[in-house]
Amino acid sequence: MNTLEAIRTRRSIREYTDQPVSHDAIEELLNAAMNAPSAANEQPWQFIVIDDRNILDRIPTISPYAEMCTRAQVAVLVCADLRLLRMPDFWVQDCAAATENLLLAAHEIGLGAVWTGVYPVEDRVQGFRTLFSLPDHIVPFALVPIGHPASVPSREERDRKDRIHHNTW
Amino acid sequence: MNTLEAIRTRRSIREYTDQPVSHDAIEELLNAAMNAPSAANEQPWQFIVIDDRNILDRIPTISPYAEMCTRAQVAVLVCADLRLLRMPDFWVQDCAAATENLLLAAHEIGLGAVWTGVYPVEDRVQGFRTLFSLPDHIVPFALVPIGHPASVPSREERDRKDRIHHNTW
Repeated sequence: MNTLEAIRTRRSIREYTDQPVSHDAIEELLNAAMNAPSAANEQPWQFIVIDDRNILDRIPTISPYAEMCTRAQVAVLVCADLRLLRMPDFWVQDCAAATENLLLAAHEIGLGAVWTGVYPVEDRVQGFRTLFSLPDHIVPFALVPIGHPASVPSREERDRKDRIHHNTW
Repeated sequence: MNTLEAIRTRRSIREYTDQPVSHDAIEELLNAAMNAPSAANEQPWQFIVIDDRNILDRIPTISPYAEMCTRAQVAVLVCADLRLLRMPDFWVQDCAAATENLLLAAHEIGLGAVWTGVYPVEDRVQGFRTLFSLPDHIVPFALVPIGHPASVPSREERDRKDRIHHNTW
């Protein structure tokens, strides 16, 4: 599909079928994530692919808005690696761009996904740190549950001409 | 182009031809930006489209890494509107997703663009606040110079299997 169409038709998918998600598909999504731009091209990301049912089922106790993990086939925890930074200021933006690429790629190949926020909510950050025994330099940033869509929300019109200004505020 | 191809072939474009960028093209880019996901669907963004040559030429004095504004036909200042927030924690991520969509859309329609960081570098934030007389609730987030590409960097391989972990760190 054309990129503009993908951007306009992507929705947050929270209901999934029981169909497994292939390893190849997950690699495709992570390749897309890793092709995001980053400040000074630092690429400061790490990814944990979670397909262990026991772990997926425990995630809602850490992150209440990630309850769809109990139904997802797989989830990706996008993390920042602070050891990869030369500039401290932009890793949140870099990881957000990577996460958006991952969501768009999922939509392109027919999967459904949803961005659930982790950083900077302290109890969620700490919960994922504990669950995965993360070292101090790895910051859990966002969790993306993924599956084949069972239900797709309708298209939403988000074009807001009142948000566009010309040469002045 | 297919979304995966767009994601993989997008590069930061810093050299532009003198060909103008149409208003329709800019609206297409902003529509893509506004279709980004956002926490609680807050859509906390505002955009200033800058095509006044005097303003474009002054930007490098505010943001040294945005010197390509002197050659760009237009630039978009992505801003956050703090009055639109119900949740304070996620607007940086929301604006980053919008910026990434804008860059991908530019690549899709044959334009070149580059993400130059503003927030949270205090002197850049203050510089754009002053340049556009922004009210306190509007935070300049990122500046994206845009034009028809005069020079395209070669493809870069960013796939890093060592950044992928399975069910554990």
